[in-house]
Amino acid sequence: MSKTWTLAELAYATQTTVHGNADKTIQAVASIEQAQAHELSYIRDRKYFNLLNTSKAGALILTADLAVQYQGNALISNNPYLTYARIVTLFNPLYRPAAGIHPSAVIAEEVSLGADVHIGANVVLESGVTVGAGTVISAGCYLGRNVQVGAQSLLYPNVMLYSDTEIGERAIIHSGAIIGADGFGFVPEPTGWYKIPQIGKVILGNDVEIGANTCIDRAALGSTRLGDGVKLDNLIHIAHNVQIGDHTVIAACTGIAGSAKIGSHCQISGMCSIAGHLVIADRVTITGTSFVINSILEPGVYSSGVTVEEHGLWRKNAVRFRQLDQMARRLASLEKQLAELQNNKD
Amino acid sequence: MSKTWTLAELAYATQTTVHGNADKTIQAVASIEQAQAHELSYIRDRKYFNLLNTSKAGALILTADLAVQYQGNALISNNPYLTYARIVTLFNPLYRPAAGIHPSAVIAEEVSLGADVHIGANVVLESGVTVGAGTVISAGCYLGRNVQVGAQSLLYPNVMLYSDTEIGERAIIHSGAIIGADGFGFVPEPTGWYKIPQIGKVILGNDVEIGANTCIDRAALGSTRLGDGVKLDNLIHIAHNVQIGDHTVIAACTGIAGSAKIGSHCQISGMCSIAGHLVIADRVTITGTSFVINSILEPGVYSSGVTVEEHGLWRKNAVRFRQLDQMARRLASLEKQLAELQNNKD
Amino acid sequence: MSKTWTLAELAYATQTTVHGNADKTIQAVASIEQAQAHELSYIRDRKYFNLLNTSKAGALILTADLAVQYQGNALISNNPYLTYARIVTLFNPLYRPAAGIHPSAVIAEEVSLGADVHIGANVVLESGVTVGAGTVISAGCYLGRNVQVGAQSLLYPNVMLYSDTEIGERAIIHSGAIIGADGFGFVPEPTGWYKIPQIGKVILGNDVEIGANTCIDRAALGSTRLGDGVKLDNLIHIAHNVQIGDHTVIAACTGIAGSAKIGSHCQISGMCSIAGHLVIADRVTITGTSFVINSILEPGVYSSGVTVEEHGLWRKNAVRFRQLDQMARRLASLEKQLAELQNNKD
Repeated sequence: MSKTWTLAELAYATQTTVHGNADKTIQAVASIEQAQAHELSYIRDRKYFNLLNTSKAGALILTADLAVQYQGNALISNNPYLTYARIVTLFNPLYRPAAGIHPSAVIAEEVSLGADVHIGANVVLESGVTVGAGTVISAGCYLGRNVQVGAQSLLYPNVMLYSDTEIGERAIIHSGAIIGADGFGFVPEPTGWYKIPQIGKVILGNDVEIGANTCIDRAALGSTRLGDGVKLDNLIHIAHNVQIGDHTVIAACTGIAGSAKIGSHCQISGMCSIAGHLVIADRVTITGTSFVINSILEPGVYSSGVTVEEHGLWRKNAVRFRQLDQMARRLASLEKQLAELQNNKD
Repeated sequence: MSKTWTLAELAYATQTTVHGNADKTIQAVASIEQAQAHELSYIRDRKYFNLLNTSKAGALILTADLAVQYQGNALISNNPYLTYARIVTLFNPLYRPAAGIHPSAVIAEEVSLGADVHIGANVVLESGVTVGAGTVISAGCYLGRNVQVGAQSLLYPNVMLYSDTEIGERAIIHSGAIIGADGFGFVPEPTGWYKIPQIGKVILGNDVEIGANTCIDRAALGSTRLGDGVKLDNLIHIAHNVQIGDHTVIAACTGIAGSAKIGSHCQISGMCSIAGHLVIADRVTITGTSFVINSILEPGVYSSGVTVEEHGLWRKNAVRFRQLDQMARRLASLEKQLAELQNNKD
Repeated sequence: MSKTWTLAELAYATQTTVHGNADKTIQAVASIEQAQAHELSYIRDRKYFNLLNTSKAGALILTADLAVQYQGNALISNNPYLTYARIVTLFNPLYRPAAGIHPSAVIAEEVSLGADVHIGANVVLESGVTVGAGTVISAGCYLGRNVQVGAQSLLYPNVMLYSDTEIGERAIIHSGAIIGADGFGFVPEPTGWYKIPQIGKVILGNDVEIGANTCIDRAALGSTRLGDGVKLDNLIHIAHNVQIGDHTVIAACTGIAGSAKIGSHCQISGMCSIAGHLVIADRVTITGTSFVINSILEPGVYSSGVTVEEHGLWRKNAVRFRQLDQMARRLASLEKQLAELQNNKD
């Protein structure tokens, strides 16, 4: 059962101001269509303006200019969506199991555990592991030799950290994430492929979140490195020696090939494919399914991909794609011939 | 060792009729090319017709009209492929380990286990978990607080169910599936990204199958929901608040972004990318690698994607794609100029 | 701490020859830009030629013709990159934990373990499992009934092998890989989909490496089969009944649909999508994000995919893709009309 808050308490906690009844009690948050008399909601932008006076919410988070037009209780914020997210957190703090070490955990010698850690059932900590204070290592996680996890981090069940992986403070790592497995490196030899030992490691900054079943490979030599505040969604592949700048976010199913260097504050959408050994500047946005094979050196929005159409039409168009260069040449030839005809006429 | 069946017994079990020797014993099923004298096979459609009289199979499953042309033993079915699948099941019932709770399982208080459940080695069941009668929770699975799994379900090893996930009856969930991890939701703030607590959950209907390493995220608020009979292949990403209608099937590596609403009886092929906040009608088929960024409101078959060609040709054509709009404008200009020339001539 | 080697020892171990001081001691390998006086590096090709005389490396691996122009110590090799990889291995042999069986492992009856195996914490071995000599089964792995793993193999933590899977010698399988889960096979029935039992298995040859969270499904009937020396990267999907020839390598995030038959010595890049029931010849290279829906019967390099461009331009071009067939028809019509005009003039 969540705690009840007054608007005054919420305003104090979120550095916003109350408009209306500061003693009004709030029990939960909800969407503006569904919020009831003891619930709080928000309007993110003007397109939801018409909901302002029909909402049954007990209070709304609004910008100052919207609040002028509203008779009910409100919290006034420069950024209602961010204030909403902060208040959702107040009502629903991230669940952290109690500190303690489950008797089934298998803990090697020379492991250093900070104060108030939680080590769940069947966790395996190899020698040289360091876990910071207040960190939760949930059931079934495996931390290889010399892994370091910073304070106040939260590893959900079955996270696998290969040896030497370093993770900063306040990390959130979801189940099935594999960090530090070998990069994919082989040298052709007469009989097949010779494995290049992957002797580097993975280093993640502070405040990183890694999605479920995402894979981040260790470097061939040196480090694969994610900066502070990087957020990765599910089922992402980060190859060896990739570098990702601070506060870059990447959506699900994207793959980044070896040694790519991604800037900070980038936003990369889902199912993108980024080739190896290229550079992406800071503050680049890449839309879904994009295929990047050259460096992007200027901030901006970049896209590729061909969108869905009725199947029969697609078949006709897809075939023509193979004729595109030929079509372009025929077009140029027509232009030239037509110009000659026109010249002859003059 | 599988049990031996007579054709009469198989006909009774599958509601088909025998043509030929009803006492013929069948020991196994096999492909029509490989089936031997004590094996059963089937012909799915007329294009395999020429195999009818060369097959060494002890019996075939055929439609009535094909059976007229066949001298051997047969089971007559309106749907030979479905009958075949049913008979494969008779010979190879899904393996379910014996009921019982492995002593290494870690079971919290306030867990409710139905009759004849199997709880494998190293399973962790947190408080409030409910497991229905006859359900198998294989080794290494983790069921978070208040997870519900219906009767007769089968979780393969290392399935991770985050708190509050609800799964119906007769589910089959393959290893590495992660259900209920946080949706990918952040609000920009001056210094980076603020995590929006994902306080919803995941609800799966009855008769759902989830493939290996597939991820289904919990809702931000409310529920991510898959209807009855939904089948997901491996390595699929289902984002927060997605809704999938009954009996929709989705092939491997597809990703569906947040709050998309997929209809029932849809067939979505592999490696598709479906954007967030859109609607797909019932009975829509989407072919492989399609990229969907707008709603699809009519049943039908939809496609996108450009298929492989020789690399040198591809390079030329791919470059032209960037000139496509310009080419279209040049084409329109040519049409106009040519029309003028033709008019001048008249 | 790695052992120190003299150049003479390294030359002996790698069948190369020393140029310069054979007693020179080497402590580690490093990139040519970073290598210091007791480190060894290499030059892979002529484009790094300018680094030859500025490098501080204690020795370099060079081809004979490059060595002529170099004053320092060198190892002379026909293939410097392969020699480098072999020497990295000498300095960094793959870590293998000591032989032994962890007391928390759960081992059924009728399990056959070779000499010097390592069975880690919380491993589960079901009945009929065979593990070859010297093989490492790391913490949390699950080997289902009758699984066979050959000698000298290395399974990282949390590898899941479904029943009957057969793995050759010297395999390396990374965490989260799921081998032998059910193929995705259903028959439509009036009320939804009927599951076709997947009664085949997976067979991997010798010297196979499988990446993190990669899935290889068991065959519907018969075997899904990967040849000797096949290397799969992370997050790959291999569907039921796929056949992959010897020494083929596949990069991350690629998906291969059911019953596709891939040749030997192929190189398939990341995020490719290969349709079912097709054939790819030996020695085919497929570049990243390619979409293959027909067989490729000749060796060569094949590609598809449209690369990223500025978003506004992309929107214009992507719309035109839907008009491509119409554009081609208009182009042909223009050509015809222009030819008529030209004929009329003559």
